[in-house]
Amino acid sequence: MAKQPELDDFRVPYFDDGKKNTKFSLDAFDPSAKPFSTGSKDSDRSRLSEIGAQLDNLQERLHAQRKRRVLLVLQGMDTSGKDGTIRAVFHEVDPLGLRIVPFKAPTPVELAHDFLWRVHSQAPAAGELTIFNRSHYEDLLVPTVVGELDAKAFEQRCCHIRQFEEMLAYSGTTIIKCMLHISKDEQRSRLQSRIDDPTKHWKFDVSDLDARKQWDKYQAAYRDALAATSTDYAPWYVIPADSKTHRNVMIAELLLRELEGMKLEYPPAKESLKGIKVE
Amino acid sequence: MAKQPELDDFRVPYFDDGKKNTKFSLDAFDPSAKPFSTGSKDSDRSRLSEIGAQLDNLQERLHAQRKRRVLLVLQGMDTSGKDGTIRAVFHEVDPLGLRIVPFKAPTPVELAHDFLWRVHSQAPAAGELTIFNRSHYEDLLVPTVVGELDAKAFEQRCCHIRQFEEMLAYSGTTIIKCMLHISKDEQRSRLQSRIDDPTKHWKFDVSDLDARKQWDKYQAAYRDALAATSTDYAPWYVIPADSKTHRNVMIAELLLRELEGMKLEYPPAKESLKGIKVE
Repeated sequence: MAKQPELDDFRVPYFDDGKKNTKFSLDAFDPSAKPFSTGSKDSDRSRLSEIGAQLDNLQERLHAQRKRRVLLVLQGMDTSGKDGTIRAVFHEVDPLGLRIVPFKAPTPVELAHDFLWRVHSQAPAAGELTIFNRSHYEDLLVPTVVGELDAKAFEQRCCHIRQFEEMLAYSGTTIIKCMLHISKDEQRSRLQSRIDDPTKHWKFDVSDLDARKQWDKYQAAYRDALAATSTDYAPWYVIPADSKTHRNVMIAELLLRELEGMKLEYPPAKESLKGIKVE
Repeated sequence: MAKQPELDDFRVPYFDDGKKNTKFSLDAFDPSAKPFSTGSKDSDRSRLSEIGAQLDNLQERLHAQRKRRVLLVLQGMDTSGKDGTIRAVFHEVDPLGLRIVPFKAPTPVELAHDFLWRVHSQAPAAGELTIFNRSHYEDLLVPTVVGELDAKAFEQRCCHIRQFEEMLAYSGTTIIKCMLHISKDEQRSRLQSRIDDPTKHWKFDVSDLDARKQWDKYQAAYRDALAATSTDYAPWYVIPADSKTHRNVMIAELLLRELEGMKLEYPPAKESLKGIKVE
């Protein structure tokens, strides 16, 4: 009998795992695989809705407790489905409890600071579930691909990221990082459909094709970035994402596991309120 | 035949409406009325879900166009349902397109600035729909009730608010302000149920009862604040809110009308993309 897939099979080996980490390769993960699919799109959708309701409840506890913080980082090539994930996975979650932070190309003011400055100011507060739609990892990937970051500077940034994330985790933040892994073929078809549908042109910029031309360089940069920054306090997961429903279910399952693992409870009743009659 | 209720019947007369404005009184609005209810809770819920889907579509256009901004301000006494409104009305709207900003008691840093400072920094950007869960109006209401703002200072703040909101509107922001109007009896029952249910204690602070003791003063402050800051560029609406489903439907209808009135269209197709084949 085939082994049941486990979420941790898709976790990038930790940076300090030595040999295991060195061997890590994105090619080992099939972007079209659907290990966490329940069998059909329909049942995937009901599973997603089921998890959504649980996430909503867990998020309310997180909020009520106001102690822990949760940070979900979404990274992936263009069209890999970061926006779609947020829409689908958090559909059932109270918008009050979510904060979504998109990171675009840095502005001149942001560039005038260190690369973690704009990110730190958006880190989740106690009781918050914050989603980074792209993140500080862009500042590792893009400059590497365009040749502005040499190997030594890359290592230095990875080191700063590890230290930064360790500090967030130490301060009560659960960090979950997902790389939405699509194939080059799937990206072609998604980009083409944006071009062919004039009502989707607003989602498309010709420069998106430039990044595609650098596909292999990006994959290599992702590999190196993930290998150097997957840690027990801020692990990376590779999410097979050619199938949108699979991607959504897998990320939802992952979040559910992590939030359940936090043992979030409502704060205890306040004795001082006992018997009060409102006038 | 009774006149069909119209949303504008619940709009606070504009500040420069002279006599009409002076006569404005909250007592003229019955908090338990359900003028926009469709008849039953069930049909209200389906209407809400129908509007939700339309709001989702309009919000996507707003986002695609990246020109206009929308600001919804929610104010009301404790338990009037600000959180519940956000949850119910925006359930169908893509979380990507929403930003919800809660304003609590100002921090020392915030107090070291003018009262609009923290609010301005959270104003919606182009393409954004931002919801203020409480707002700069707290800085008008609370200090008035506790006696820290005399009539002259109150007028001055109202004037600054009008000028600030005029500038936001001039710069492309559609501003909609809702006062969730509940009765003193309804608040008693909602506060009591929070006290009687230990799992809801986290939502309750004994100081909430102090504000209730000042009920009449708050109602008077609300009256004066609304009368002095309802303008054609940033109108106030009184929302009868003893019924939660009515409150939700009415606010949803209002938003729908305003967003539809903005004539939001997707940006035109890009000629430059025509015929491109992705390699």
